[in-house]
Amino acid sequence: MAQNVEEFLSVAVDAAKKAGELIRNGFYQTKHVEHKSQVDLVTETDKACEDLIFNHLKQHFPSHKFIGEETTAACGVTELTDEPTWIVDPLDGTTNFVHGFPFVCVSIGLTLGKVPTVGVVYNPIIDELFTGIEGKGAFLNGKPIKVSSQSELVKSLLATEAGTKRDKLTVDTCTNKINSLLFKVRSLRMSGSCALNLCGIACGRLDLFYELGYGGPWDVAGGALIVKEAGGVLFDPSGADFDITSQRIAASNSLLKDAFIEALQQSK
Amino acid sequence: MAQNVEEFLSVAVDAAKKAGELIRNGFYQTKHVEHKSQVDLVTETDKACEDLIFNHLKQHFPSHKFIGEETTAACGVTELTDEPTWIVDPLDGTTNFVHGFPFVCVSIGLTLGKVPTVGVVYNPIIDELFTGIEGKGAFLNGKPIKVSSQSELVKSLLATEAGTKRDKLTVDTCTNKINSLLFKVRSLRMSGSCALNLCGIACGRLDLFYELGYGGPWDVAGGALIVKEAGGVLFDPSGADFDITSQRIAASNSLLKDAFIEALQQSK
Repeated sequence: MAQNVEEFLSVAVDAAKKAGELIRNGFYQTKHVEHKSQVDLVTETDKACEDLIFNHLKQHFPSHKFIGEETTAACGVTELTDEPTWIVDPLDGTTNFVHGFPFVCVSIGLTLGKVPTVGVVYNPIIDELFTGIEGKGAFLNGKPIKVSSQSELVKSLLATEAGTKRDKLTVDTCTNKINSLLFKVRSLRMSGSCALNLCGIACGRLDLFYELGYGGPWDVAGGALIVKEAGGVLFDPSGADFDITSQRIAASNSLLKDAFIEALQQSK
Repeated sequence: MAQNVEEFLSVAVDAAKKAGELIRNGFYQTKHVEHKSQVDLVTETDKACEDLIFNHLKQHFPSHKFIGEETTAACGVTELTDEPTWIVDPLDGTTNFVHGFPFVCVSIGLTLGKVPTVGVVYNPIIDELFTGIEGKGAFLNGKPIKVSSQSELVKSLLATEAGTKRDKLTVDTCTNKINSLLFKVRSLRMSGSCALNLCGIACGRLDLFYELGYGGPWDVAGGALIVKEAGGVLFDPSGADFDITSQRIAASNSLLKDAFIEALQQSK
């Protein structure tokens, strides 16, 4: 099995790099087309990347299952089973993609018996490849990474996102939480990619991350495994166990977890 | 004079690249030292970069004046006169530097007769060099850049920062403004460097940027010229004229300016 897992990773990395090329090409075009075409370019790039990744993986692993953002949008939710299942976000950070803000990525995760086992997150614009295999560590461009050793909230860098919903309850909840948390942490970053925020936790650039209401399991399947393999912990912002289907996530190192949950609970 | 200005830029770029090397070296060390040493590393890198930049510029332009963040902290405010004056932030994004978050830069601006004339902003981690000369355009790694052509707030990407002050009034003002603006724009980015936010406006990655209470003129002297030369506009968030000594700035393209000011005024 160990050999298989290495092969799973290697094939997933190939797929991510190829999709990354499509993203890179589109990224530098968005500034030169009108808005209507920008939207088309996002949709086309998203779809082309998902097709490319699924075809590449299917060629090597014809019996595996697949869950993707684009396919789910088109065909409805696919249930996660015990079968080997690839969970793919072909283009995380679509707003950044449209605007040319360099935080975009491909995210690929593999579950075996519902357990995340392989993770690949690739930012093709600044050429950063994050990888992980269950029990074998996490890597950035081939070098081992680990979460920060920070133990004090007040010295911690927090990341979150404003998401895409703009109803009053969502926006008020978002800014009330930020208000409460700003008094307790060093500063706040919002960079527009859930998968890259998880990788930021994994390599210690960020100490704390939470997001409520992101798109789906494809946003976190790759990054969650990479965080764990870098020594980090994942949990529900309420303090409950992390549930990949819940669209709620928090991540940190283990030293900060309890204080972070308390701060999140107080931020309601 | 035209030849001189080209020479001013070329010498400033050399200084920024050399300082960038020091920043890059420190950037990859911060994760491997204890917190106390991290603080020392920031201070040392900041000081070493300012010394390097000032020495390099003084060697070529012994009669020019100099205003720097570190020197000001040590010796008090230097008045801006009509003399050629270099305004330097040797390391913008110090929190990012400590945490290894890849938005850090050197910022160098030159004023002649108090008018910003040359601007250099260099991010040594992702190797992006933004430059501008008054009347001659703005460039990213040698290629011409311009502000976005977006004309609708609702499709605009906004950037701001939480700053470093954590008194109740500052934090409440910050999150109240964010709350009000989130209903009107597409999304929000906070990446931790004022100079790079200005360059993000200049190259169209960001459509809207404002910040209240940043450190000083060194944070904006380079970026402000680059925004103007990329076709953008600078103004006080109240709608008044931009004043480089006021620690208040807003930037956008000219199409968005009026709507942005109105949205900022409504966000109090």
